Amino acid sequence: MCPPADVPPANGNGHEEMVLVDTHETARPAIPPANQTAPNGSSNGHSHPPTNKAKGPYSRASDFLSNTSNWKIIESTLREGEQFANAFFTLETKIKIAKMLDDFGVEYIELTSPAASPESRAHCEAICKLGLKKTKILTHIRCHMDDARLAVETGVDGVDVVIGTSSFLREHSHGKDMAWITKTAIEVIEFVKSKGIEIRFSSEDSFRSELPDLLSIYRTVDKIGVNRVGVADTVGCADPRQVYDLVRTLRGVVSCDIETHFHNDTGCAIANAYAALEAGATHIDTSVLGIGERNGITPLGGLIARMMVADPDYVKAKYNLPMLREIENLVAEAVEIQVPFNNYITGFCAFTHKAGIHAKAILANPSTYEILNPSDFGMTRYVSIGHRLTGWNAVKSRVEQLNLNLNDEQVKDATAKIKELADVRTQSMEDVDMILRVYHTGIHSGDLKVGQSAVLDRLLEKHIASRDSSPDRREKDVNGTPAKRQRVDEATTA
Amino acid sequence: MCPPADVPPANGNGHEEMVLVDTHETARPAIPPANQTAPNGSSNGHSHPPTNKAKGPYSRASDFLSNTSNWKIIESTLREGEQFANAFFTLETKIKIAKMLDDFGVEYIELTSPAASPESRAHCEAICKLGLKKTKILTHIRCHMDDARLAVETGVDGVDVVIGTSSFLREHSHGKDMAWITKTAIEVIEFVKSKGIEIRFSSEDSFRSELPDLLSIYRTVDKIGVNRVGVADTVGCADPRQVYDLVRTLRGVVSCDIETHFHNDTGCAIANAYAALEAGATHIDTSVLGIGERNGITPLGGLIARMMVADPDYVKAKYNLPMLREIENLVAEAVEIQVPFNNYITGFCAFTHKAGIHAKAILANPSTYEILNPSDFGMTRYVSIGHRLTGWNAVKSRVEQLNLNLNDEQVKDATAKIKELADVRTQSMEDVDMILRVYHTGIHSGDLKVGQSAVLDRLLEKHIASRDSSPDRREKDVNGTPAKRQRVDEATTA
Repeated sequence: MCPPADVPPANGNGHEEMVLVDTHETARPAIPPANQTAPNGSSNGHSHPPTNKAKGPYSRASDFLSNTSNWKIIESTLREGEQFANAFFTLETKIKIAKMLDDFGVEYIELTSPAASPESRAHCEAICKLGLKKTKILTHIRCHMDDARLAVETGVDGVDVVIGTSSFLREHSHGKDMAWITKTAIEVIEFVKSKGIEIRFSSEDSFRSELPDLLSIYRTVDKIGVNRVGVADTVGCADPRQVYDLVRTLRGVVSCDIETHFHNDTGCAIANAYAALEAGATHIDTSVLGIGERNGITPLGGLIARMMVADPDYVKAKYNLPMLREIENLVAEAVEIQVPFNNYITGFCAFTHKAGIHAKAILANPSTYEILNPSDFGMTRYVSIGHRLTGWNAVKSRVEQLNLNLNDEQVKDATAKIKELADVRTQSMEDVDMILRVYHTGIHSGDLKVGQSAVLDRLLEKHIASRDSSPDRREKDVNGTPAKRQRVDEATTA
Repeated sequence: MCPPADVPPANGNGHEEMVLVDTHETARPAIPPANQTAPNGSSNGHSHPPTNKAKGPYSRASDFLSNTSNWKIIESTLREGEQFANAFFTLETKIKIAKMLDDFGVEYIELTSPAASPESRAHCEAICKLGLKKTKILTHIRCHMDDARLAVETGVDGVDVVIGTSSFLREHSHGKDMAWITKTAIEVIEFVKSKGIEIRFSSEDSFRSELPDLLSIYRTVDKIGVNRVGVADTVGCADPRQVYDLVRTLRGVVSCDIETHFHNDTGCAIANAYAALEAGATHIDTSVLGIGERNGITPLGGLIARMMVADPDYVKAKYNLPMLREIENLVAEAVEIQVPFNNYITGFCAFTHKAGIHAKAILANPSTYEILNPSDFGMTRYVSIGHRLTGWNAVKSRVEQLNLNLNDEQVKDATAKIKELADVRTQSMEDVDMILRVYHTGIHSGDLKVGQSAVLDRLLEKHIASRDSSPDRREKDVNGTPAKRQRVDEATTA
């Protein structure tokens, strides 16, 4: 099942090891011939055995296929993302995004076809000249010799070729049959390979294509030495079990890498990417915040969140995770959108805990209600306590942070007042602190005893009256902690 | 694989029927004893055979377990949603939300525990008095007799009991062992049943609980006649294959309904809900826009999007889909958030098509790049054409909408100009229309010939100069079509 957030993955036990070895030998496709390893050394999913150490006590025997600890990102913000309704990237913006993705550590970025427009071509050439440190540059073209000739002249490290194979697209898009598609694919692939750069062949709308057609063309292009075949859920209709079945079947037919591209129209883009890796896929397409056609594709941050559960050490070693928020902010600004309130990892509430029982447990051990550790991403954990669902354990932790001396009975009594006031309106952190301080003063001056709710009300009124007339009121506001929230890192590490 | 958006699901072929019947007979759990059907007639997932007609040519033999055409929503915006960082619902707001969810057609709504605060109790009682038309009312409590006594007095149709079963929660939350949990669960369940209302028992953090503990307590509560057992991914760590495995195993152990609750921290909340239904679950927890602890749970709209792919007729018959946007806007306003740009179905770009090849195909047949039909949700399709990735086929459709008389060669020529200008800045629909109108006038007055780019530039400058000096300019702006977009319903239905 799920590993805890803060415990390193366990090694497989003896039994699992045996299962791995046995099925491994028998079930792995043949090692590809030399001519099928990528010219510029890109790892082939099967040129070395995937890391198959079990990630927890419940890992599945079928994990011999899994690449969840052995995968690469093809970051398509500058291709798929440019097809987002709001996207208009200047060269300057594209360069900023490309450099940040390189610093973050993605293995590939994919750029809009140079055939799309003169500017697209110029941008592609300019980005190839940047000399990125780690990230390889791909461009995404139609399965057509004219586009291929343009592409190889831009200086890219590789070309991603795509063509629609579903009856829908064959009828209503390009109008070509499978024979024509195969013939053209071979021509384009051999041309691009002759230039000594990477080549991927992908079907479009793969999950509404006929399986025999798909397998047959993938086998053909694999035989002539394509680096990757691509499976694309272009309309966002696929579910994880379909993805697992198709990729696992394909894994047995081709020996090259398998790239996958998932749209998110029905909410499965992240889960489908994960299922594809479990079935032996090697590359996942992403975009920052998932921007793309319609509601987009697998988001970079969402994929990272999912893969952190599978193998945190592998993900942390590959990518500069604290950069994620900066990259998302850059792209959000460039396409004039807000980062969604519920965005993975970086959404404002991603690490906010509210219910009393959650708050209590989080304070005792963050892993109780967190599978991700906010500090891995340079984020902060919050426990919200000034509301009607709060609990006295969360209030007690705040009392301790404020160095107030109250026993449990007194904390429970103060909590009752906070809940009473929060039933009228949510109390800000400043409100909560005031209540606790006034309560503390009252108890220790002897003016207040446990259970004297009316007395506490009077003390609070008196305090508020004097506070509002005090000169340093404005300054207090400026230094006030954010409303509705409480920083508890101190509490949790104490 | 995936059915097209606008084609009714195919019936299973003979072979599939056989598979269904065979496995059905042998693999279905026993029909539950009479005392296990819900007192107020709520369907038990197995009290009648699930609808198992195949949804397409690729449906799986294992579909005999599937409830993807036989499921219910437990809408938890007023419980889980109240635990969202920004949520503070007044009674008035809660009543509005409850009534809209009733009109929409959800089978259940779940309310915050009356034990949470005096106001929570008063709200629960008030909502029970509303007399909702279709929707049953549940409240969600800790596994504790005090909470249970409060709950049954509020007038709810059922009680959802939850307790943490993972070692994390047993250690750091309630500190109780499985023996205590079992003993208390039995006491609470028998008490609630004695009041003649529905009772669900759920574990918390199910995917980090020990499988033997889980199965053993679920079997126990099933034997004493609980209506539903609940599986909860409280921390959002589960993936669809884990969910499928656990629910399928559980389906063979209990004969009562199975409810599932999935958090979205790692992006699988919708896919996990779908996998649970495929494995025989009967009820899915949702909240509007997915609001809840941290980044929330399975969103109502996202679940609907997914289930529309599985069985559109079933979903359309159950729910008032065009209300979805209204409900989301109400909740978004109540908790002071924006509907995310990429929200399922209702996000501003959910049905916007941009790339040239997409635009062309969509105009020929919307199913090429859409698995959902926007009109089912009262939404509208857009094709964006004023950008550097546009194609002449999309421009041609606009030419036809404007009733301009241009041949293909001329449309291609005008498209080149649109792309040229869009390379500098994205052209609004008004810009595109102006270019096309000026081009058309130029061609038919003889001032312009195909390929005379410089001449067209002069004609455009002249037109813009005269337009900007014209008195009705302001009015034109007001009535201008939205920037970057084109309404093509006419085109697609033409």
